[in-house]
Amino acid sequence: MTVAGDLSWPLAHAASRFGDAPAVAAGGRTLTYAELARRVGGVGAALGGLGERIGYLGANSLAHLEAWLAVPAFGRVLVDLNFRLSIDELAFMVQDAAVDVLVADAERRDVAQQLGVDVIGEDEWDALAAGTPVSPPGVEAAALAAISYTGGTTGRPMGVMLSHENLLANARHNLIATGHTANDVWLHFCPMFHVAGTANVFACTWAGGRQVVLPRFDPAAVLAAIERERATHAVFVPTMLAMLLDHPGFDAADLSSLRHIQYAASPIAPELQRRVLDAFDCDVAQFYGMTEAAPTVSHLTPQDHRDEERLGSMGAPVAGVQVQVRGPQGDALAPGEIGELWIRGPNVMLGYWNRPDATAEAIVDGWYRSGDIARADERGYLYMVDRAKDMIITGGENVYSIEVEAVLADHPAVREAAVFGVPHERWGEAVHAVVVLDGDADAEALIEHCRRRIAGFKVPRSVEIRNEALPKSGAGKVLKSELREPFWHGHDRRVS
Amino acid sequence: MTVAGDLSWPLAHAASRFGDAPAVAAGGRTLTYAELARRVGGVGAALGGLGERIGYLGANSLAHLEAWLAVPAFGRVLVDLNFRLSIDELAFMVQDAAVDVLVADAERRDVAQQLGVDVIGEDEWDALAAGTPVSPPGVEAAALAAISYTGGTTGRPMGVMLSHENLLANARHNLIATGHTANDVWLHFCPMFHVAGTANVFACTWAGGRQVVLPRFDPAAVLAAIERERATHAVFVPTMLAMLLDHPGFDAADLSSLRHIQYAASPIAPELQRRVLDAFDCDVAQFYGMTEAAPTVSHLTPQDHRDEERLGSMGAPVAGVQVQVRGPQGDALAPGEIGELWIRGPNVMLGYWNRPDATAEAIVDGWYRSGDIARADERGYLYMVDRAKDMIITGGENVYSIEVEAVLADHPAVREAAVFGVPHERWGEAVHAVVVLDGDADAEALIEHCRRRIAGFKVPRSVEIRNEALPKSGAGKVLKSELREPFWHGHDRRVS
Repeated sequence: MTVAGDLSWPLAHAASRFGDAPAVAAGGRTLTYAELARRVGGVGAALGGLGERIGYLGANSLAHLEAWLAVPAFGRVLVDLNFRLSIDELAFMVQDAAVDVLVADAERRDVAQQLGVDVIGEDEWDALAAGTPVSPPGVEAAALAAISYTGGTTGRPMGVMLSHENLLANARHNLIATGHTANDVWLHFCPMFHVAGTANVFACTWAGGRQVVLPRFDPAAVLAAIERERATHAVFVPTMLAMLLDHPGFDAADLSSLRHIQYAASPIAPELQRRVLDAFDCDVAQFYGMTEAAPTVSHLTPQDHRDEERLGSMGAPVAGVQVQVRGPQGDALAPGEIGELWIRGPNVMLGYWNRPDATAEAIVDGWYRSGDIARADERGYLYMVDRAKDMIITGGENVYSIEVEAVLADHPAVREAAVFGVPHERWGEAVHAVVVLDGDADAEALIEHCRRRIAGFKVPRSVEIRNEALPKSGAGKVLKSELREPFWHGHDRRVS
Repeated sequence: MTVAGDLSWPLAHAASRFGDAPAVAAGGRTLTYAELARRVGGVGAALGGLGERIGYLGANSLAHLEAWLAVPAFGRVLVDLNFRLSIDELAFMVQDAAVDVLVADAERRDVAQQLGVDVIGEDEWDALAAGTPVSPPGVEAAALAAISYTGGTTGRPMGVMLSHENLLANARHNLIATGHTANDVWLHFCPMFHVAGTANVFACTWAGGRQVVLPRFDPAAVLAAIERERATHAVFVPTMLAMLLDHPGFDAADLSSLRHIQYAASPIAPELQRRVLDAFDCDVAQFYGMTEAAPTVSHLTPQDHRDEERLGSMGAPVAGVQVQVRGPQGDALAPGEIGELWIRGPNVMLGYWNRPDATAEAIVDGWYRSGDIARADERGYLYMVDRAKDMIITGGENVYSIEVEAVLADHPAVREAAVFGVPHERWGEAVHAVVVLDGDADAEALIEHCRRRIAGFKVPRSVEIRNEALPKSGAGKVLKSELREPFWHGHDRRVS
């Protein structure tokens, strides 16, 4: 009976409250919220004829932002794909999600056309957006809004099913945590195919802020956009912050408009964190989360960043999300004890698309088992200890070791392979492989073998070839910790 | 599948995040959030034995605040009663809601014992709270949390059914609109039996702010509490603001701790609004709403209060609530056109308790028909024009004319009666009756007749006795506008 709202609400609110205010600047165009709502309504009128699940393959753009505002609002499902993936990977996702039509930007059009599905370009999208607008029909809050692919622990990517309620709840959690206002100017350069990249799209729209869309992260372009647009807010992956600070133009750039920057999506090295706090004269906040939580879980506030003792924490749960540190039997642990993070709230995903097995493993009694290993202090602040899932985070991208190991094992000369992360100044971690051969191959050939099959960011940066078998436990499991240890000696392997 | 949360979440969050921080100061006691959670858990352990629907009859107190935090959190329903009502009225509500047990403060104990239901005192409540705490069991978001009585348009009070989701949504809307923080110190002196009085209890708890509970509004006590507690936030009914400004101690009081005050629940006269803005050196915000919307609908922000053109507005819808101005046929009207306010959102009530007829009339396709007549401007700001419901707001209390008319008509000497509001300097409006007799009675006798049957604030302050029949429309309906007009000539009858 209760109407909880759907993903059409933020834009409807902004169009009614801030209709004549600038909404989006993208690709040289500027639109008010009234104009944006008309374009989204134009797309909505055409969506019925396009299909049920709409894929997207492209950099950030006006059309890409509109896809998030239009596709779920008109009762369709957005499948936003990571364009850095290989054709094989993308083809798997398009087929797995039964995508009906794929929107692609000019740069990705050729790839899109190899995926076995109808493709429309951003120019065609633009024509749809110019059509006669219709009003959103109203959608159940529990309805599926988006399928967002994430690496699977079994080696195959899995589609995270996010409902309207999930994404609206996340927007509210971010509104409460950050306090968006109509006076904000947000820079969007994190890729929109990551839910972290769109987390602030709905929140900023609801608040009536101005949104500046950059196609991708580029340090010079970001510095120029901050100056030109007088940007007040931006979200970074730590790797981006390092690139920005290292950029020769950083010191001369006028960043005086910035009021608040956030970093998220991967661990930050303490030295980088220090550099950021020294270099930026504005609020700095950290968010921790994952696609399955749409994504925000915890928040290290600007105030926390002024407290040395808190800097090593990934923050405390935001209002609206519950977190428990639990032992192997599912028992809630006391502060200080180390266990797995279980997460609950209206933001937690519906489950994995077509994977009831994986869903049942991941969601237990309404709690999402994150796989991350952490401890909480007496005031609820979380400290990451390790990732239970065998995962590498490199430059903000998650790489599941098992997927890379499976590709390596496919090579005829490989007897066994272990893949893990090693410290990397720029990327946080880099993908490294240890391989035992029973045929003829060198590191270069193995890397090339991987490059043809998986996304570039998953391909090992370095391969060590061994003659003896890998160290194993009594149960025959490769002792990856033993392989990993020498690389991390003296390094702080903080993960988030 | 999605766990949307329940009313145990704000306190659980605060206890985990701000356990050692002061939560409540009430009646000379101060508790931390950890202590408050333990007491609420102690009450929770005992609630199972008390019944399904727990009534409350009392001034603001620690127990009263705990009732809101404990009763819904442990799956029971709170029926918080307006202690200003007459015994007949209270008895009707206790019976209508099938209250199982009534918690009463010492001052209301005698009245409570005449209502035909088991009574426990606040001293007994205190003993329950000291018991061994248990954890909240988890409750469905759609479950009934509270029944809050409001005057009925048919003359009988109706119980507004508010779910966990309704009250949580309202808390989130207030968190987003006001931006509560852990550094806030909120004064609670608006009566907690009004949902407006508790609106900020859940929001402030979620944010971990400190809450100072005063038993009731008293100008001297409020001024003293602001000084003593260094209060930062408070909510007023306009009448209270007038009393505060008129108080001889106002000019000498140290109000420097105040950062933000709100007014709500009734219209504010432009002169009073001006005085408030001149007298308080802090943010001033207005909220408009009603019990059926749990209650927040629209918000005139502090920034709006610095814009002369906006001062006459009751604000624009908060993010999360949709409002439409509709014509008599239910058609959405354009900005500037006058119509009825229809309201939609996760905060809108489940319906009226045991009154499917009234529910079906009030909630149409998920929209709540408020009965208030207003117009919206181009930016969504709402301007009240009139109330469709024949209702008087006097000192923040709603009085339905039909209820008073029915009581007057019950008097053997009364042939017909019309009741409406007339301007009143302190209360905004005062209840006035025009009566035609066919027997022997005077104004005093009629007032006394009412006083025995209905709450003091509903009793006519003045009664005019006429010899000729009341003016009527062709359909025989009393033309109340004609009766009302002479009183309002030259007055600005702003209503909200």
